[in-house]
Amino acid sequence: MAKLTAEERNEQVKPLLDAGWSMVNGRDALYKEFIFENFNQAFSFMTAVALLAEKMNHHPEWFNVYNKVQVTMSTHDVGGLSAKDVKAANFMDETFKRYV
Amino acid sequence: MAKLTAEERNEQVKPLLDAGWSMVNGRDALYKEFIFENFNQAFSFMTAVALLAEKMNHHPEWFNVYNKVQVTMSTHDVGGLSAKDVKAANFMDETFKRYV
Repeated sequence: MAKLTAEERNEQVKPLLDAGWSMVNGRDALYKEFIFENFNQAFSFMTAVALLAEKMNHHPEWFNVYNKVQVTMSTHDVGGLSAKDVKAANFMDETFKRYV
Repeated sequence: MAKLTAEERNEQVKPLLDAGWSMVNGRDALYKEFIFENFNQAFSFMTAVALLAEKMNHHPEWFNVYNKVQVTMSTHDVGGLSAKDVKAANFMDETFKRYV
């Protein structure tokens, strides 16, 4: 696992930024807020993400209150974004589509 | 549902403060950090708490990264602590015992 190159960022991170992810201030990390109808949906989403996270051994930093889930993704071992973050972010966007 | 009285705080909140909960700075809210062995345990704990939260219609504010779960409990409708927070906090402490 390595830090994403400039080319990889252009190909893989830029589409995420266009899809509502943003770079965290002062960190090489991706952030997005997901809003659901209620807690049941929010926690159902979190459960789907948790299962992937455990499978990938790559876990989010996330905050939840009621229908809101705020996620930050970065790869501790490389000190920034890796392909794992891109995969997890895309999975979250795909999963979120179930709820809209 | 009403804000806890001084007497109720003495009886119900004080034992929580003795058990590692603390009052949030500037808010009538209870906070505790739970540390697990790994993400699997942390999310298993969160799932148990989520099921109770949904049943009570009383949801935590919480942050998780890997083996760490930071919980804040307060009752929005009363602008501070209610009996629901005490019940949820005690449930979390009981649930956490499974993991230690």
